[in-house]
Amino acid sequence: MDQQTPTSLARADRQAEQRRRILDAAIACFARGGFHATGMQAVCAEAGMSPGGLYRYFRSKEAIIEAIVERDRAAIPAMLAPLLEADDVVEAIVEAARQFVAGNLKSEGMPIFPELYAEAIRNPAVKAIAERCDVEVHEILVRVLERGKTLGQIDPALDANHAARLLMAFSDGVLLRMLYEPAARLEGLMPMFERSIRSFLAAPEQGR
Amino acid sequence: MDQQTPTSLARADRQAEQRRRILDAAIACFARGGFHATGMQAVCAEAGMSPGGLYRYFRSKEAIIEAIVERDRAAIPAMLAPLLEADDVVEAIVEAARQFVAGNLKSEGMPIFPELYAEAIRNPAVKAIAERCDVEVHEILVRVLERGKTLGQIDPALDANHAARLLMAFSDGVLLRMLYEPAARLEGLMPMFERSIRSFLAAPEQGR
Repeated sequence: MDQQTPTSLARADRQAEQRRRILDAAIACFARGGFHATGMQAVCAEAGMSPGGLYRYFRSKEAIIEAIVERDRAAIPAMLAPLLEADDVVEAIVEAARQFVAGNLKSEGMPIFPELYAEAIRNPAVKAIAERCDVEVHEILVRVLERGKTLGQIDPALDANHAARLLMAFSDGVLLRMLYEPAARLEGLMPMFERSIRSFLAAPEQGR
Repeated sequence: MDQQTPTSLARADRQAEQRRRILDAAIACFARGGFHATGMQAVCAEAGMSPGGLYRYFRSKEAIIEAIVERDRAAIPAMLAPLLEADDVVEAIVEAARQFVAGNLKSEGMPIFPELYAEAIRNPAVKAIAERCDVEVHEILVRVLERGKTLGQIDPALDANHAARLLMAFSDGVLLRMLYEPAARLEGLMPMFERSIRSFLAAPEQGR
């Protein structure tokens, strides 16, 4: 940071802004036609940039997809960090799940979510990025669950490692269903999801 | 049926067998390269058929994708029907979830599952087929849950309509995670999934 002059900072800002603009344009294109049916020209047109301008930031469609996954997933660990200091661990997890689902539903990138999964399964570079973030999310959740166990708020017999994976699986499943079936939207499905998290984590003496 | 001669029955069998062969070949191709990067020629080569032969059964790649969704989803309602006669409704649901996940994990079509979702979101014909089956699954699950409530095995306060959707969302989420992250496989994740179903559905007096 102390090596950077105001001019180089302004340049970095400008570059970050250009990258953001390209990624948003690409997401809009991918949402309409899918990754594979979308060409770089379509992304250029949507972003209002020349191919030469765009190629200075991203050398290929794959590089754009990787950057979308990176940006998408990088936001999650920061969202989860407050869980490590919550007084009521279970309610904090419920609230994080609510934010995760609601935030994603509002996101323009939502329609490409299943395709990102498909791409991560096939494309090692995309998978590596998604995995790096997944490991981070999983680690935070395990620490949160262990803390809830110590506080007597979560069943001490629960395997935190596998329970964290289940919460991740459930969040994606709920998101996928809301995307696919608007009738299942927030008002109906989310209270069920919240109930299931509470009952799944509950310490035995609390009952329900 | 009584209109069909032995010869026309044999012809129908032969046609069903050819369709099956094409769909299996297409799934293998799609799993390797995705829907959009896979051409009809690749499917012909994999099935060992000429383009002319294949086009007699499917006029386009979209028609193949529709038939895959149709076949894939059509198997689920039959799997769920026994739930309507189970003595222990909750355990029968747990067992059905186990079969759904284990069966899909063994399926060759598993890697194309996220892409089928993506396609259903974009392609109205695929969506219509998936929805038809989804409605059927949802209806059966609602009846099963209502029966469990009547028998005192499921919390009578549970909204069966939304609870059924949650179970569908969870099943897909678990499947997606197992596909994407082999470390999360059956042994670790499935007992968690089972626990969550039991605690979610439990009638209050049973506790856990």
